[in-house]
Amino acid sequence: MPPPNSPAAVVATTVVAEAVDAARAAAPLLAREPLPVRAGRLRAAADALDTHGIEVVALAATETHLGSARLTGELARTTAQLRLFADAVEEGSFLDIAVDHADPRAAPVARPDIRRMMRPIGPVAVFAASNFPLAFSVAGGDTASALAAGCPVVVKAHEGHPRLSDLVGRVLAGALPAGAVTVLHGRAAGRGLVSDPAVRAVGFTGSEAGGRALFDLASGRSDPIPFYGELGSVNPVIVTPAAVASRGASVAAGYVASYTLGLGQFCTKPGLLFLPSGHGLESALVDAVRAVTPGPLLGEWIRVGFDEAAAALAGLDGVRPLVPPTAGSGITAAPALLAMSAARFRAQPAAARECFGPASLIVEYDDPAELLAALATVPGSLTATVHAEPGRDGDLVGALLDAAAERAGRVVFNGWPTGVAVTWAMHHGGPWPATTAPLHTSVGVAAIRRFLRPVAYQDVPAELLPEALRDGNPLGLPRRVDGILDTVAYAG
Amino acid sequence: MPPPNSPAAVVATTVVAEAVDAARAAAPLLAREPLPVRAGRLRAAADALDTHGIEVVALAATETHLGSARLTGELARTTAQLRLFADAVEEGSFLDIAVDHADPRAAPVARPDIRRMMRPIGPVAVFAASNFPLAFSVAGGDTASALAAGCPVVVKAHEGHPRLSDLVGRVLAGALPAGAVTVLHGRAAGRGLVSDPAVRAVGFTGSEAGGRALFDLASGRSDPIPFYGELGSVNPVIVTPAAVASRGASVAAGYVASYTLGLGQFCTKPGLLFLPSGHGLESALVDAVRAVTPGPLLGEWIRVGFDEAAAALAGLDGVRPLVPPTAGSGITAAPALLAMSAARFRAQPAAARECFGPASLIVEYDDPAELLAALATVPGSLTATVHAEPGRDGDLVGALLDAAAERAGRVVFNGWPTGVAVTWAMHHGGPWPATTAPLHTSVGVAAIRRFLRPVAYQDVPAELLPEALRDGNPLGLPRRVDGILDTVAYAG
Repeated sequence: MPPPNSPAAVVATTVVAEAVDAARAAAPLLAREPLPVRAGRLRAAADALDTHGIEVVALAATETHLGSARLTGELARTTAQLRLFADAVEEGSFLDIAVDHADPRAAPVARPDIRRMMRPIGPVAVFAASNFPLAFSVAGGDTASALAAGCPVVVKAHEGHPRLSDLVGRVLAGALPAGAVTVLHGRAAGRGLVSDPAVRAVGFTGSEAGGRALFDLASGRSDPIPFYGELGSVNPVIVTPAAVASRGASVAAGYVASYTLGLGQFCTKPGLLFLPSGHGLESALVDAVRAVTPGPLLGEWIRVGFDEAAAALAGLDGVRPLVPPTAGSGITAAPALLAMSAARFRAQPAAARECFGPASLIVEYDDPAELLAALATVPGSLTATVHAEPGRDGDLVGALLDAAAERAGRVVFNGWPTGVAVTWAMHHGGPWPATTAPLHTSVGVAAIRRFLRPVAYQDVPAELLPEALRDGNPLGLPRRVDGILDTVAYAG
Repeated sequence: MPPPNSPAAVVATTVVAEAVDAARAAAPLLAREPLPVRAGRLRAAADALDTHGIEVVALAATETHLGSARLTGELARTTAQLRLFADAVEEGSFLDIAVDHADPRAAPVARPDIRRMMRPIGPVAVFAASNFPLAFSVAGGDTASALAAGCPVVVKAHEGHPRLSDLVGRVLAGALPAGAVTVLHGRAAGRGLVSDPAVRAVGFTGSEAGGRALFDLASGRSDPIPFYGELGSVNPVIVTPAAVASRGASVAAGYVASYTLGLGQFCTKPGLLFLPSGHGLESALVDAVRAVTPGPLLGEWIRVGFDEAAAALAGLDGVRPLVPPTAGSGITAAPALLAMSAARFRAQPAAARECFGPASLIVEYDDPAELLAALATVPGSLTATVHAEPGRDGDLVGALLDAAAERAGRVVFNGWPTGVAVTWAMHHGGPWPATTAPLHTSVGVAAIRRFLRPVAYQDVPAELLPEALRDGNPLGLPRRVDGILDTVAYAG
């Protein structure tokens, strides 16, 4: 980034102030709109993206090299996400309403009337990701969940797809009130956003280094604000001896397909494969890797980073390069596969570092105790996958599922972690460094909660209460009344 | 605190390691226990406190000077809180369960089976408060909510009541599994806890300076952890011209009673009173303050801090000392009341700083526009109170309630903020500096959420799933199934 007084930094400051002012002006309007209107805005945004779909996908393909099939699917996911969030807004449980009527006989002291609901937290800064130019970018999950919460958004576009970001920003601007979504460019603008007094929360998807720097900026403010960062994840896959014995070949093929999918440019890419020593799958794995065609990464900066990370991994003590990393050129990369013993893995924390791109490390364990000890050193991850045979692995399966749940936000059984369904139950998060906020998800309906804060109203007369809190439940929302959940209005 | 290599620091390190090891050992046991067993533990803790009630209250009175009537009430609140959390554990909605069955026809892609629930976050450090030696201390709200979440707790006792802390710690230890609650003393131990790799979250109640230092420590870890700090709050009270006209005398009396209750040693003590210029309540206010008997504060350190803060407030530009602060001695303090214009208030941020103890500032506004502008400079607060006459204040009431909700976690209407009901709907939180985590509450059932993190299970066979997530809802818990809330099991 430029030094503080350079012309670029001055321009960024002005631009940030304008964007944040627009967001601040929009905030009370968005917060006030009835839920059906808010839901309608999300659907209008989805419709507008569909209308411009061909143009959007074509520009995305030019800037990201991801291919129009993948991008068409990603656009469908992006609009489906906006529409699911519209449904969630109308359903209303995100408001987390609780009504406790006054109780003059309560012990130890009489209680006033207390009614709580969630309110939008205020303007949100969103940092777009490189690897999902639609679903985690200008119109992506962070933006959709902030809008669903009733918050305006200022997006810091990813430098990997600037023109696409502007196009999507224009499409959204045409469908939403002024100031609801604004797109900015450049690192100085990004840092300015995180520091701006009017910005009340940040959503971020990107690298551990970049996320850490911005998390520190948000936490170091004179008024710290919540920073929801999805950073790096190694997504371990654990295979038991019984799973190797019963279906080793399909596990090998599935693993290679998962870690090379999209050339490994997914946050859920499995980076560690725990196999029992003497697994006998080496040639199957190597053959599968050799069969993967080298392809274009998102950009040259990704390729350079991948080469460096893969070379660092290959240079660790005790690494056996099954398919050695090859220095690429331009934007093309070929997959790599390495192996080491669990003992060496435990001794070298760098072996568990995320390598963004098509490289993976096999960790070979001698017995369950060594496997569990090695797992205990794996950093917090978005996912942890267990391949096992419940009938034949005995108590080991339960212990592995517990270990997986201890270190990851999603536990996958006999499957693969790549692919994240956008649903009510999804959790896409996990302990540091997978995220900066282990209580929250960046995918699925619960993502809306990140941009809401509770307010309780005490003894406020009915006519002055938000409608959602009034007796008789005039908006038909799910609520907890005097401790009892009441879902009659919409479940009936 | 002692320098890093002093004997005291070395002792603290050893003691912290032992306490955290005990908590770490207890964590999986507590996490695994069935919900009715966990609820039973909370009730056993409450029963044990009741059994030792006379001894506990007597020691608390000796160490805090709060008086046995108040402390008996606080003990009742503390045990009622443990029992309410036991009820909440059995009710089970804190698990936030969602089940999305596999959907092979989902658009844009087929969906696996995904089931989410909350799991305990792990060992929790709790920093006890001085002003609630029972309800916000060793057996207080943070401890109760962590235990309800299934997390072991290491408490850093407040130096204001060390023997009481040890007594309550022993009472809890007799009722709970080993390692569930441990009590430590001293600042070095506190800092050691926040830095300990096994500690996964922190609950804190105390000063803005102390809370900020520990928040920075938690956020600056190589693996940052959530820090739930309740810091300082000025709790503005806003009175409209119509409220002055219709019941000015009772507002004046009520305000003085609220800010001098317990000699102002409450986090919800109102510190700012917004009155229309020419309100004519000055003599009523002054008479009420003069009628308050000076009394003992929690300790000399509180009195010294109060004297300094009150003198600083009195020294600001344009202050009229209605009842000037008087330098106290020992632990005795007398109430003070100051006044200034809204214009001077807006120009001096120091006028909105919390003064812990029986001092308060009247801010006099000329018109609604000036009132709203002044409110916009009030820092985030736990509460904001509006005294108005809905029939006669017109649109002003709505604007004031909105401004209150914008800046506070609880909006009180025609009442007083002191006193916090422990219920399902309560929110005791707010924007910085009221708290470090505006999404969360430290009082009420929702406080449990601070110590839980979600885990989603993908395609895990029924017999390996946590019972709470299995089809047929064998535990009878509230759940969201395929998007629809299902409360039949317990609401029927």
